Amino acid sequence: MSALDLLPEAIAGTNAEAADAHARDLDALAAKLERKGLDADALKAKVAAFTVAIPSWGTGTGGTRFARFPGPGEPAGIFDKLDDCAAIHRLCRATPDVSLHFPWDGDDPAALKQKGDALGIGFDAVNSNTFQDQPDQAHSYKHGSLSHQSKATRDQAIAHNIRCIEIGAAIGSKALTVWVGDGTNFPGQQDFTGQLDRYLESAKAIYAALPSDWRMFTEHKIYEPAFYSTIVQDWGTSYLIATELGDKAQCLVDLGHHAPTVNVEMIVARLAAFGKLGGFHFNDSKYGDDDLDSGAIDPYRLFLVMNEVLRAEAKGANLAHMIDQSHNVTDPIESLIASANEARRAYAQALLVDQDALRHAQESNDALLASETLKAAFRTDVEPLLAEVRREAGGALDPLVAYRASGYRQAVAKERPVSSGAGGGIV
Amino acid sequence: MSALDLLPEAIAGTNAEAADAHARDLDALAAKLERKGLDADALKAKVAAFTVAIPSWGTGTGGTRFARFPGPGEPAGIFDKLDDCAAIHRLCRATPDVSLHFPWDGDDPAALKQKGDALGIGFDAVNSNTFQDQPDQAHSYKHGSLSHQSKATRDQAIAHNIRCIEIGAAIGSKALTVWVGDGTNFPGQQDFTGQLDRYLESAKAIYAALPSDWRMFTEHKIYEPAFYSTIVQDWGTSYLIATELGDKAQCLVDLGHHAPTVNVEMIVARLAAFGKLGGFHFNDSKYGDDDLDSGAIDPYRLFLVMNEVLRAEAKGANLAHMIDQSHNVTDPIESLIASANEARRAYAQALLVDQDALRHAQESNDALLASETLKAAFRTDVEPLLAEVRREAGGALDPLVAYRASGYRQAVAKERPVSSGAGGGIV
Amino acid sequence: MSALDLLPEAIAGTNAEAADAHARDLDALAAKLERKGLDADALKAKVAAFTVAIPSWGTGTGGTRFARFPGPGEPAGIFDKLDDCAAIHRLCRATPDVSLHFPWDGDDPAALKQKGDALGIGFDAVNSNTFQDQPDQAHSYKHGSLSHQSKATRDQAIAHNIRCIEIGAAIGSKALTVWVGDGTNFPGQQDFTGQLDRYLESAKAIYAALPSDWRMFTEHKIYEPAFYSTIVQDWGTSYLIATELGDKAQCLVDLGHHAPTVNVEMIVARLAAFGKLGGFHFNDSKYGDDDLDSGAIDPYRLFLVMNEVLRAEAKGANLAHMIDQSHNVTDPIESLIASANEARRAYAQALLVDQDALRHAQESNDALLASETLKAAFRTDVEPLLAEVRREAGGALDPLVAYRASGYRQAVAKERPVSSGAGGGIV
Amino acid sequence: MSALDLLPEAIAGTNAEAADAHARDLDALAAKLERKGLDADALKAKVAAFTVAIPSWGTGTGGTRFARFPGPGEPAGIFDKLDDCAAIHRLCRATPDVSLHFPWDGDDPAALKQKGDALGIGFDAVNSNTFQDQPDQAHSYKHGSLSHQSKATRDQAIAHNIRCIEIGAAIGSKALTVWVGDGTNFPGQQDFTGQLDRYLESAKAIYAALPSDWRMFTEHKIYEPAFYSTIVQDWGTSYLIATELGDKAQCLVDLGHHAPTVNVEMIVARLAAFGKLGGFHFNDSKYGDDDLDSGAIDPYRLFLVMNEVLRAEAKGANLAHMIDQSHNVTDPIESLIASANEARRAYAQALLVDQDALRHAQESNDALLASETLKAAFRTDVEPLLAEVRREAGGALDPLVAYRASGYRQAVAKERPVSSGAGGGIV
Repeated sequence: MSALDLLPEAIAGTNAEAADAHARDLDALAAKLERKGLDADALKAKVAAFTVAIPSWGTGTGGTRFARFPGPGEPAGIFDKLDDCAAIHRLCRATPDVSLHFPWDGDDPAALKQKGDALGIGFDAVNSNTFQDQPDQAHSYKHGSLSHQSKATRDQAIAHNIRCIEIGAAIGSKALTVWVGDGTNFPGQQDFTGQLDRYLESAKAIYAALPSDWRMFTEHKIYEPAFYSTIVQDWGTSYLIATELGDKAQCLVDLGHHAPTVNVEMIVARLAAFGKLGGFHFNDSKYGDDDLDSGAIDPYRLFLVMNEVLRAEAKGANLAHMIDQSHNVTDPIESLIASANEARRAYAQALLVDQDALRHAQESNDALLASETLKAAFRTDVEPLLAEVRREAGGALDPLVAYRASGYRQAVAKERPVSSGAGGGIV
Repeated sequence: MSALDLLPEAIAGTNAEAADAHARDLDALAAKLERKGLDADALKAKVAAFTVAIPSWGTGTGGTRFARFPGPGEPAGIFDKLDDCAAIHRLCRATPDVSLHFPWDGDDPAALKQKGDALGIGFDAVNSNTFQDQPDQAHSYKHGSLSHQSKATRDQAIAHNIRCIEIGAAIGSKALTVWVGDGTNFPGQQDFTGQLDRYLESAKAIYAALPSDWRMFTEHKIYEPAFYSTIVQDWGTSYLIATELGDKAQCLVDLGHHAPTVNVEMIVARLAAFGKLGGFHFNDSKYGDDDLDSGAIDPYRLFLVMNEVLRAEAKGANLAHMIDQSHNVTDPIESLIASANEARRAYAQALLVDQDALRHAQESNDALLASETLKAAFRTDVEPLLAEVRREAGGALDPLVAYRASGYRQAVAKERPVSSGAGGGIV
Repeated sequence: MSALDLLPEAIAGTNAEAADAHARDLDALAAKLERKGLDADALKAKVAAFTVAIPSWGTGTGGTRFARFPGPGEPAGIFDKLDDCAAIHRLCRATPDVSLHFPWDGDDPAALKQKGDALGIGFDAVNSNTFQDQPDQAHSYKHGSLSHQSKATRDQAIAHNIRCIEIGAAIGSKALTVWVGDGTNFPGQQDFTGQLDRYLESAKAIYAALPSDWRMFTEHKIYEPAFYSTIVQDWGTSYLIATELGDKAQCLVDLGHHAPTVNVEMIVARLAAFGKLGGFHFNDSKYGDDDLDSGAIDPYRLFLVMNEVLRAEAKGANLAHMIDQSHNVTDPIESLIASANEARRAYAQALLVDQDALRHAQESNDALLASETLKAAFRTDVEPLLAEVRREAGGALDPLVAYRASGYRQAVAKERPVSSGAGGGIV
Repeated sequence: MSALDLLPEAIAGTNAEAADAHARDLDALAAKLERKGLDADALKAKVAAFTVAIPSWGTGTGGTRFARFPGPGEPAGIFDKLDDCAAIHRLCRATPDVSLHFPWDGDDPAALKQKGDALGIGFDAVNSNTFQDQPDQAHSYKHGSLSHQSKATRDQAIAHNIRCIEIGAAIGSKALTVWVGDGTNFPGQQDFTGQLDRYLESAKAIYAALPSDWRMFTEHKIYEPAFYSTIVQDWGTSYLIATELGDKAQCLVDLGHHAPTVNVEMIVARLAAFGKLGGFHFNDSKYGDDDLDSGAIDPYRLFLVMNEVLRAEAKGANLAHMIDQSHNVTDPIESLIASANEARRAYAQALLVDQDALRHAQESNDALLASETLKAAFRTDVEPLLAEVRREAGGALDPLVAYRASGYRQAVAKERPVSSGAGGGIV
């Protein structure tokens, strides 16, 4: 028996217990929405259609350069990870797809596809890894990958990305996300422009290998692992790269990859306005790329981002929504459930914005009323609506409660080997 | 007839229109709170007891070094300002006191007291101004005030603070807030320690003049108007100053006066833990000391601060709550109403935190559950409760709607002279 | 007699006093450069060719939203300002041009040209001001200018920019710098994309009025005077605007207009790589747009920017170098002299970089050697070279000493009316 | 034969080659200093007395949470590390002491002492590690160490610190540095004050075990590895901890552990003014705790810190100077040599500041002259003086050149096992 088999009963049981209170909360919310002229059913349909992909690597406990503290029952490989992703989706019904990372997730597309099909899990964008060295690797990425001074190293990194596309094509993915750590730690270490030229040349070789119905996502990040300069340091460079590459190239916005105080929702709007917004890596942050749980630190910012998502989608944008977090002190399954819920919450709140009132306030320069219009939507407690969407899709009214009740983690802890804390010790 | 006389009818009228919807929203909320074992009446009493002082200077339109764009009907002097403060309080019933700033607000305590009494307005902490030169001033504050190299300049600044105490004593204030712009724009401009020594000597002279039942608030700010160093640059220096001065000296936390990314709620907790938390200047910010409306940018941060306020108050802290904002693009009265409401909202949400669940999550290192416990409180829409508290005190269910319905601004615009944009032109 | 007539004697006198020490320092430096295979005369010629424009508004004392503290002898109008600019150039021989700002600098091109010719001063880029209201203005810029919701307001701002071009054309300028404060203070206040669309439409109307040999500079700034969003918030938006406009549009980089920690020299490299680097507003900063004296806070950063300037110029870029600072606590003439010197110093140090060694270190991924190569150039004390360039051009070996010796400030203080502190009082 | 034996010949050989140029540079500098009334010999003595301790962990290649890329000849254990430290000191003669980290550096004080004596290396402050779990550890530090909810975990962490003191006492150390990663990743995860109370209780138990002639250093850090709050988040908390503990407790300032834009040199001055400055962890940073090479990013900031060091030392402070860096892309030996040199350079430049001129400028509010006084010292190229100090002590005129000439790294690479990239893979 798989640990996944523990879930249906836990879902049914906890749903039954919560049914009454849920019904009352839902009624109250529906009445309130109705008073505002909103149709709860239409909202539910839109919320149900909003899904986020789970990163396979997010199911393991993350860490920092100082240490990694494993938890019980950590996934030992990609098949365990896919089990965990399936568990998440069965509970929250918001995460039908998984985003894979290679070579972390092996090189056996047939087995991946088979496992995914068996679990009812699909595959979102595939991710290449040229920021680490693998044991059997000919050329080191210590001094860069796609932008490396040496053509042999660049070619190796290009070949890896093309292999990612091949695997992705075999499992039904439609996009490649390219994030590299290339950069410098010292002024002068590399010439900014020469480095970017080499990067562009490499990226073009990868782009040329894209199937016709694929997209290639370029992702910016201000710093880390490089600490003086990073080659795709901001959305400006990301936009220029995507533009150089062509129509299939778009920009991915990781919410935590910006300088302090930067207005991220505005960057989303800019990329959308110029036709290059491809999607998101959701997470939250207080200091840097903290990779904290979505909405854990600044839920209003997430709501403001979702406002721009809605505007972009209204204009026809096809956005890839993915979570990218590091779960250092929680059960990763719980964090991913909560984060998917937070993303949907912010999306649902954004759906409640009175667009006519907002437009009127903007046109009359009524800043306060515009602000209040957004906040009125934000402070609506949409949790009953989110719960109902889950329930209708077979999920849990309260997925965390159901998960804890299921004993899933304890069950897999018995089956899976104890993970080491490897990764610590670099200071 | 005073413009204030327009308010009662507007409050009554708009309250009548909103009565039904309000009753239903309030019932739904009360039912929900009851299901959670919370007593709505007890909550209302606590919320009603939470008030914030209005800064007299906040009733005028603010500006930047680039420009100031006045609005219609700006207060021409302190009596107009007190009228506006009274209007705010009558609408929102959350702001019974005004915080004055001298010499901006004149030097006639008897007249101030009389006007305050007539309006039913009290006086919170008084503020001294030694960051500007006045026309008749003997010594310039260009190079500092309480920390100036010249004893004559320091003595002048000390004397002004003592005069502020005298005025405050005459009008019923019980605290003096000392914020200075003293600092440097160049490395080496002043010796950090010598400058602080002079500051401390001056502060002690002011402290010595405090009545026995007064407090003196020291307020830190990382930068502006000085751009290389500021003498009370952070809570550490503020704490040390308050400690050097004595028990009547406490630290004021202006939410926008910190370096980017700093955890402000933790600073609040630290000052409370070491017995030096005196109160707040509420506002919100995205980049620097933006002085934006409270809760306009990051309402969750405001909620987290209020969590610490509750903890401090539970341990006996007597905190001064004041707004300090610059209203550049809105009607200041509207911004102050909305901000007082946001402060109360965050306070009310903090009151909803399930403290037992939180403590249990903390004790069992259950980070996710702790976070969810806070967020469950935060996402409760307490607006019906806030509205009911206002209504019971004679205020408006929706103070902004009532204010706009009253025609107050249009009425005062007819009486008050048009304000100039003076203040612009400094780049 | 003009105060400018005091300078020649002061220059001659102080040069004579410093001649011996200067000769020895210069000999030592020349010997050192020769040992490194560098030709001091070639370096001198390159340094002499590097000039920076003085902003007319920089000759007055600046201020903050809190206060402005005027100094003695402040310029009463543009003709006084041009006198001060001439004084600066005669002392440091690095600032032959002035950048004007309208309507601050009047509307009489013939008089400006005549005065400039009389002083031997040329005119660099002209700057438009649509971030302040003028007394006789039909439409307020309180809620924006080129991006305003109202076409009438936008047209007024367009017309002002076109008038700036006309004045500039009449006095020999070849570029228009467009910086606007348009933005928002609240989430939702304006739609990001609609606002940018309006801005672009307005900018195109201005661009259409450019003479064929002119350039139009678009300048980004992360925040201030708007505190939630700014329409041209970063180089990415600035680049896209310049690209939409056409070949004559280029991006201006003000060193202080970026988010904390951002790598500014990399932005310079990116704009140069994509053909849109137009020039600079030099200054220094620690916290925000502090507008401190160039090189006063982080001289190594200025040096790294100059490295990119050299690379861009080597590829044919024609860059406009301007100072943009706020002199709040110093004599503006002294700050401008020192800042022009710092810009030249960093440029001269960049000229000393051993480019072969640097390239070799980069190609061999020798990060430490690359860093050391830059730092070897940076730590060379090039002051004797800079002094000699000044001396040969008729300027002062030590311009600050000569300026103080001249009594220029005291002389103009007798002639010019005392400036008020107007501008204070906005909090 | 030890690889260390390769150094004398390399030093002698490269010194001979550089002797002539060095002599000329030194003469020119001495002449210049003499013209300024400075005594080169006195300066040399002061510079020679300024030393910095090498962190044992800094001799290995560092990394990030993304990856670690080992270099050739990495030290396999503490004895290899001490060899590398000895090599560094023999070349640069500025690093006579090593700072150890336990349990990384084993638990055999006798062997450590013997090895140190054999190499002529002393031991500076010892560091405890309670931010990682060790294989045989009873209680995990996943949720904290000295502040953990569980007394058993706290006791374990206390015992480890006391063991560090014991080892340190046996090898001649006189200080314990306590840095913990304790903090939270979510609002609400722990009560700020309860957590600090537990920390203080634990710290007091450690303090009680200090020998009478020891110091205990408390070290603050704004974030990482915790990303919402860190228990000793800034100098304010660090100061309060040190004050609670007693006279033997002092604060350590790691230059990279502050919020963006914070004025670090001012914090140094504040801690010195209040008697709690204990010493430094030198490094440089652009974004966060980048742990880059000292002086690599902002050498002027390092100079300004050294100005405060001089002031503190003049008042009797006994400061511990240590390097704490992560060398990810360079040979750690080269980075440590360069960094020790940069620290000394900044110290030497600070010694050149004309203190009389500075004081006079400060007293007369002459900000520009004060700034110029500092910069005149900073831009003096003191490298010939530093080289001479090394030469006189038996070191290399150019230690990097000598190191590369020696073949030390190649020699140890033959002896030492290839290091794995372990530590990567946590994202």
